[in-house]
Amino acid sequence: MKHPLLVCLFLISSATIAQTNLSRLTINQQRIQTRLLELSTFGELPNGGIGRVAYSKADQEGRAYFMGLMKKAGLDVSIDFAGNIIGRRKGKNPNLKPIAFGSHIDSVPNGGNYDGPVGSISGLELIETLNENNIVTEHPLELIIFANEEGGTVGSGALIGKITPTALKSVSQSGLTIADGIRAIGGNPDSLSKVVRKKGDVAAFIELHIEQGGILMTENQQIGVVEGIVGIEHWDATIEGAANHAGTTPMNIRRDALLAAAKLIIALNEVITSHEGKQVGTIGKVAVEPGAYNVIPGKVVLGVEIRDLSYDKIWMLFREFESKAQEIAKASETTITFKQSSIGVTPALTAKPIQDKIINTAKALGFSYRYMQSGAGHDSQEMAQIAPVGMIFIPSVGGISHSPKEFSKGVDIGNGANVLLQTLLALDRD
Amino acid sequence: MKHPLLVCLFLISSATIAQTNLSRLTINQQRIQTRLLELSTFGELPNGGIGRVAYSKADQEGRAYFMGLMKKAGLDVSIDFAGNIIGRRKGKNPNLKPIAFGSHIDSVPNGGNYDGPVGSISGLELIETLNENNIVTEHPLELIIFANEEGGTVGSGALIGKITPTALKSVSQSGLTIADGIRAIGGNPDSLSKVVRKKGDVAAFIELHIEQGGILMTENQQIGVVEGIVGIEHWDATIEGAANHAGTTPMNIRRDALLAAAKLIIALNEVITSHEGKQVGTIGKVAVEPGAYNVIPGKVVLGVEIRDLSYDKIWMLFREFESKAQEIAKASETTITFKQSSIGVTPALTAKPIQDKIINTAKALGFSYRYMQSGAGHDSQEMAQIAPVGMIFIPSVGGISHSPKEFSKGVDIGNGANVLLQTLLALDRD
Repeated sequence: MKHPLLVCLFLISSATIAQTNLSRLTINQQRIQTRLLELSTFGELPNGGIGRVAYSKADQEGRAYFMGLMKKAGLDVSIDFAGNIIGRRKGKNPNLKPIAFGSHIDSVPNGGNYDGPVGSISGLELIETLNENNIVTEHPLELIIFANEEGGTVGSGALIGKITPTALKSVSQSGLTIADGIRAIGGNPDSLSKVVRKKGDVAAFIELHIEQGGILMTENQQIGVVEGIVGIEHWDATIEGAANHAGTTPMNIRRDALLAAAKLIIALNEVITSHEGKQVGTIGKVAVEPGAYNVIPGKVVLGVEIRDLSYDKIWMLFREFESKAQEIAKASETTITFKQSSIGVTPALTAKPIQDKIINTAKALGFSYRYMQSGAGHDSQEMAQIAPVGMIFIPSVGGISHSPKEFSKGVDIGNGANVLLQTLLALDRD
Repeated sequence: MKHPLLVCLFLISSATIAQTNLSRLTINQQRIQTRLLELSTFGELPNGGIGRVAYSKADQEGRAYFMGLMKKAGLDVSIDFAGNIIGRRKGKNPNLKPIAFGSHIDSVPNGGNYDGPVGSISGLELIETLNENNIVTEHPLELIIFANEEGGTVGSGALIGKITPTALKSVSQSGLTIADGIRAIGGNPDSLSKVVRKKGDVAAFIELHIEQGGILMTENQQIGVVEGIVGIEHWDATIEGAANHAGTTPMNIRRDALLAAAKLIIALNEVITSHEGKQVGTIGKVAVEPGAYNVIPGKVVLGVEIRDLSYDKIWMLFREFESKAQEIAKASETTITFKQSSIGVTPALTAKPIQDKIINTAKALGFSYRYMQSGAGHDSQEMAQIAPVGMIFIPSVGGISHSPKEFSKGVDIGNGANVLLQTLLALDRD
């Protein structure tokens, strides 16, 4: 078979066979379940929830457990200066940039064991599936377990160079400052500049995650194809009236800051719901001064949040709200001022070509799917600044997350892991 | 002139002269001003306000200063087991029950020097005016400086036997428990039962006080004739919805406890203002759980207060509010429950005959006056449980009280003290 044409035919035939085999490759759902259970022992709470906040002892122990699994899977494991765990697997073509995937294993204080672990353990499962089938991808692969996602995507933020010295001084849920927390998990906050990646350094990043909302479950869909992660803006709205004696001040001469605030709370809801689209607006914080039964509130501060996939829309909605606020202020003889918080997040769109691959994969595997946006923040939103990003959602039972009641079914997690695997292989073929 | 008729004529004539003289009797406005200034040095704050909370060092020193003045004025001064300062002056007729008058000299933490001191110092001024004119009243007189008025009319409450063992354990603004505070000012909390007065023990009680509202000033009236001190009821309204992720929970499936609470705040205002009358309703306290920008509030507790001179009206208004609350709960898929606080105060009406005497006095002295209610609580409301009570208001500049900006003009205070003096003399003549 030294005839060039025969060699060529053989190569085509073998490639076709290989591709067919690859598309039949499936992950081991039982192994994912077992590891979810094992990981849940780190930071397990008496109420069944998980307390594995970043940098805590439980986080450190969970990370050690996970790094052990990564090493056993043959990955070249290291902790970067930001505390991210990175497991590298060589590709056939050393000139190609790595395809990265992963998630996080830290939790909120009284959280569950699915937000983060599902994507992390499925990423590891993908490596093991490739190992068991002796498959080496063209691209190098990187499984990244980001540090401190729940404290504000700190690890992924560091990877794109956005963690400021001020942020390092802030105190994390563990009680340690971010800087000391990074040290506690083997990083070095003084060398963060060395972990920064630039556009082009990563071929693609894919993250599998639980939805954290109830749309997939309500609509009975198996896979969510995330179009983007919403932008978030926060404002403090300060309403100032006149504090006065609640017994001696007649109703008609009051300048009650809380009464004006109540109208503002309703106004935000009206503005947000009067437009088409998936935008959300929330007032979740209220501070009343002086805050006694017998004193008319003189000052109220509301914590206002608006999220949408379009930054322009966030600001259009805010302007409309602000204008209503001025009408309320005038009518109530109060003043209403807004101060934008510094912690806003710009919307992050996922890459259309990766969305298409996720959809093709879902179709090929016979899964129902729908486009959706992510209302919650994720490491993917940071990675989108430097690489094409794809994000796959699976259903959250009852739409509950950040709670001990957080739960996703094993079969849904397995479906998501298979979509992750096949999407990665499709990207690798490009 | 031993002829009975002549003797009789002489007596009538001398009584007429005495009465004429009495009606010309006036207080020394300058002396009141001087003493207000002297008293203001106890607990003076850098901002010009007064911090003389009950049982504090400033309160103890202010009381010592005041007792010195009372002794100099010839009063038989004692501290009762509740810490009230009582100054007694004998009357001509030992069979008559004493006429009592007075107020308090403790302040709120960042208060002024008029709420309480005006009535206390004017009461002393009345004694000195009688002294200087060698007048002995028919009734014994009692100048009472009540202890801890601002902490919940504790001294006057003790006098009518309503201070419970539980109340004694609560911590006062001074940092001491009420019990320890009473000890600190020379009382004995274990013997409170011995200070209790019964109906008939006191012939009448009169209190001069600043209005603490803006009605007299706005209407340019000199004297307020208080018809009664409003009753006060407090409730905690608990709104329970569902806390959820502010990013992943669509607007149309939220059960936002704060949005329902906003409607409740507006509903209270509507209920209170939709009825004729002087009732007031206030929501001054708000607690939101969990209270973060990015979490839809799951639970809100509002501190609700309604005040009116009629207890029935308070409850009629509350029932209407409660009914609106249930409509709001239904529409917002939340639950709203109310818990009445134990610290409610029943309305206290002043005695019509004393109101009439205040009015006659004001007319005779050429002062403008109006009927009004007291929206604030006073020692008079406690005394009304055991004696006929009268209450005289003078204007508060700007309607401000419980503030360093609290102020009443010297001339208005002098007018009030003269009305107090003449009303007392009129009562004594009965």
